[in-house]
Amino acid sequence: MPDQVVALGAVTVLGVLEQAYFSLQVIYARRKYSVSPPATAGPPEFDRIFRAQANCSEYFPIFITVLWTSGVFFSQGLSAVCGLLYLYGRLSYFRGYSESAQGRLAPLYFCAQVLWVLIGFSSVGVLLTFCRVYLDVDLVQELCSALDLL
Amino acid sequence: MPDQVVALGAVTVLGVLEQAYFSLQVIYARRKYSVSPPATAGPPEFDRIFRAQANCSEYFPIFITVLWTSGVFFSQGLSAVCGLLYLYGRLSYFRGYSESAQGRLAPLYFCAQVLWVLIGFSSVGVLLTFCRVYLDVDLVQELCSALDLL
Amino acid sequence: MPDQVVALGAVTVLGVLEQAYFSLQVIYARRKYSVSPPATAGPPEFDRIFRAQANCSEYFPIFITVLWTSGVFFSQGLSAVCGLLYLYGRLSYFRGYSESAQGRLAPLYFCAQVLWVLIGFSSVGVLLTFCRVYLDVDLVQELCSALDLL
Repeated sequence: MPDQVVALGAVTVLGVLEQAYFSLQVIYARRKYSVSPPATAGPPEFDRIFRAQANCSEYFPIFITVLWTSGVFFSQGLSAVCGLLYLYGRLSYFRGYSESAQGRLAPLYFCAQVLWVLIGFSSVGVLLTFCRVYLDVDLVQELCSALDLL
Repeated sequence: MPDQVVALGAVTVLGVLEQAYFSLQVIYARRKYSVSPPATAGPPEFDRIFRAQANCSEYFPIFITVLWTSGVFFSQGLSAVCGLLYLYGRLSYFRGYSESAQGRLAPLYFCAQVLWVLIGFSSVGVLLTFCRVYLDVDLVQELCSALDLL
Repeated sequence: MPDQVVALGAVTVLGVLEQAYFSLQVIYARRKYSVSPPATAGPPEFDRIFRAQANCSEYFPIFITVLWTSGVFFSQGLSAVCGLLYLYGRLSYFRGYSESAQGRLAPLYFCAQVLWVLIGFSSVGVLLTFCRVYLDVDLVQELCSALDLL
């Protein structure tokens, strides 16, 4: 089993390392701007870094979930590529947001688009598997036959 | 492997779509009540929608985790049904909380109960598997034999 | 399949129960210090409990992710032991933070160290599997042969 999902595992470990990097940035920002826990608000520079990390953390479980459903039910290779694009987008988002609220927008839209692609892959993969397992219908084959008839 | 967990995969994808819907509602509310990031506080109407989404996001990883442990170690069918009930409960919660802090309570209790059922299923499933694998004891069979003796 | 990951399943269920315990503590604190939702700020005693739970929730998906990647790609037994240590650390963190902001530090560092060990295990496991599957190189065997030659 591990052999068939190792590319997903690799992207997952990279994603965890990225989250660790974001968490460290918040710790540095807490020191730099003297915002001690449990406080979560400070100067705008701190707030942006804090919110950037919070937003990345919030989306991390969604990302891991769709990465794996897409990889297991649709295609490991395509999912892993999308996963790498998403992680790159999140890094740009974090850096952009750290500089200005405006700077977060472009990479945020990019990340959202990659997530939608992974959601689309997952939906198609789950639907095809569902029809094959429970309805005994192979939609891919049906489609190919239909195209042959044309 | 995917064939044996496709119902869990389907509930998972639905759950992700629901989270995407909640996130969009927060974006609309940010525009409507003019609360620009990184600010997270605004009029009570905005605060309720923001907290509703934050609460759903916070519980999403717990939900996905128990959905899968329950489905893999106990019963895929029962877990998928509980998963659908939970997602329905979360939708009611989000809508109720958007209207009033009071309106969140009934669906929140319902969601908590469904989560406890999934935790119960997971615990029983893991315990039975654990005894079978590490202690070589089949608790279900032992119980049936004991009942036969009565 | 479930048989080979049951120890990971057991640690996962324990982790979910611990999160449920933390959530209940926040509910009790909300009543005790009269902080009604959607408000999330109150006296420092409440803020500390609220932030302790928020921090544990934020790290829960990371923990579950590395527990499983480490368990599947490296070693189930070692991962499960690290998982138990992490859950114990989180309990100490929650209790320490409830009493004082200072009290959270020692267990927080402990939890971070355990997470880094799990990330290390995951990285090594994924790397070895990756080389074996895609490059047809068994790094462990290569290393043993190299050591034999010395």
